[in-house]
Amino acid sequence: MATNGASVNGNAAKPSGKKFDPTFTQRVIDATGPKATPRIRQVMGSAIQHIHDWARENEITVDEWMAGVDMINKAGQMSDEKRNEGQLLCDVLGLESLVDEITYKLATDAKDQPTATAILGPFYRHDAPKRAMGDTIVFGIENGDDALMFGQVTDFKTGKPVEGAVLDVWHTAPNGLYEQQDPDQPDFNLRGRFTTGPDGKYNFYCLRPTSYPIPYDGPAGKLLQLLDRHPFRPAHIHFIVSAPGYKPIVTQIFDRRDKYITNDSVFAVKDDLVVDFVPRKGDPKAQFELAYDFKLASYDDA
Amino acid sequence: MATNGASVNGNAAKPSGKKFDPTFTQRVIDATGPKATPRIRQVMGSAIQHIHDWARENEITVDEWMAGVDMINKAGQMSDEKRNEGQLLCDVLGLESLVDEITYKLATDAKDQPTATAILGPFYRHDAPKRAMGDTIVFGIENGDDALMFGQVTDFKTGKPVEGAVLDVWHTAPNGLYEQQDPDQPDFNLRGRFTTGPDGKYNFYCLRPTSYPIPYDGPAGKLLQLLDRHPFRPAHIHFIVSAPGYKPIVTQIFDRRDKYITNDSVFAVKDDLVVDFVPRKGDPKAQFELAYDFKLASYDDA
Repeated sequence: MATNGASVNGNAAKPSGKKFDPTFTQRVIDATGPKATPRIRQVMGSAIQHIHDWARENEITVDEWMAGVDMINKAGQMSDEKRNEGQLLCDVLGLESLVDEITYKLATDAKDQPTATAILGPFYRHDAPKRAMGDTIVFGIENGDDALMFGQVTDFKTGKPVEGAVLDVWHTAPNGLYEQQDPDQPDFNLRGRFTTGPDGKYNFYCLRPTSYPIPYDGPAGKLLQLLDRHPFRPAHIHFIVSAPGYKPIVTQIFDRRDKYITNDSVFAVKDDLVVDFVPRKGDPKAQFELAYDFKLASYDDA
Repeated sequence: MATNGASVNGNAAKPSGKKFDPTFTQRVIDATGPKATPRIRQVMGSAIQHIHDWARENEITVDEWMAGVDMINKAGQMSDEKRNEGQLLCDVLGLESLVDEITYKLATDAKDQPTATAILGPFYRHDAPKRAMGDTIVFGIENGDDALMFGQVTDFKTGKPVEGAVLDVWHTAPNGLYEQQDPDQPDFNLRGRFTTGPDGKYNFYCLRPTSYPIPYDGPAGKLLQLLDRHPFRPAHIHFIVSAPGYKPIVTQIFDRRDKYITNDSVFAVKDDLVVDFVPRKGDPKAQFELAYDFKLASYDDA
């Protein structure tokens, strides 16, 4: 029969007081080779420690872990150019909002700060149409609340207008769907890019946005069900604002009157990004208006 | 311009001494609803805490997090009935071996223990052919070291033989590939199920196994490269041993003379599972032999 003379892993010497092998995690971390970068060594070493601590503290069983692997594999299988379910899973756990906060804080230690950031979300599309200032991004939608959004892009230090700033904007239709989720909307509907002139000012027509559920048919929806949570996001409009010489900002603005404003399913709301739509008079093209300025940080300020 | 009167998230009151919002993680955890099961509440609450702590401690940026999401999505996309890349990623981080240890310890607090367990690994297939005792599982392979493996399945408490125990066995060919990875091998090669009679004894012909690299062409391989680690597993044979009335065990046995015995890329080696193949004389069908007994725990012992 098999006999085991010398200990291969040193397990024979493990303290009997510990429930689980106390040398295991360090052995996994120490397997990292000398050519790993310092950043990989730090980030992955810490990840291994946290994952193992989590498994031990909660006594995760093989069946539970397999259910998790299954969820992650399914997330990948659902993901394609139009959908990022892995990202959505992270969003539901607050991770994208947290790394957004971390990245923003690392970039801006100054007291006076540029416009706050928010998560990109999984529905951004590159190459939205370039549109003329004052145009609309709304096509073929009858049941929306039309709104004029306007404001100025300024240098957050000098307060001066930023010329050539590009506002890349996107939001959902009143049915809660982005155009790539909805075969009834024209391609790139409710998306557009607007470029400022010398005064830094912008204005365009959009819709007062609508709260909507994040996609509920995959692992992220399953996770929300398990957590007994709703899938709704408060009404918001996405922006990426960029300009030559300035750090681009990825952000969202949120409608204060939305019922989900205090319990966003992906935890992206920040106070600075909560806005008030107000009634607009004498404009047959819009019942609401919203004024909002964007403040950009120059690369020179870094 | 947008003004923000009342604080939506209570962020206005956050202590200035903290670098990142100290209320954020608890808000995400507290979003869990009243109908979540106690186990989900515990496991996911702890997961959120660890993931957030990891992100803050290492100041994970959006770009780094996106690289991680990409890796996870790719793992899912590579996974199918024949391949489980999500599992392989976990294996590389030692997680499968750890949950295996946890599950085993939870099941067996007794001093005298049944056969130790090891990870299932991503290459198990259901419904391997049933074979007669004494048969071989090796077909069409010329360059292997043939071995006879034999032993007995017993009740770990009474020591009595277990009748009707099924040994489900699988290992790689000398080229390091399981049959489903290798179009040149017959379907279900190097796999078989053997059922014990009243004496609990078993014997069958297999190969003395070969060390091999885990698949290196996906996210798990990429992670190993980033960590400057080799992909090799020490030579081993997989087993699931089950019998009516007994807890099934999932395990592997490892060849002591393998050069990777102390640095398995998926950290599955346990001292109790390290075995010695010895030369076999007078058998034209095998140059090596291996004796190994399996001890099963009855459900009655739980």
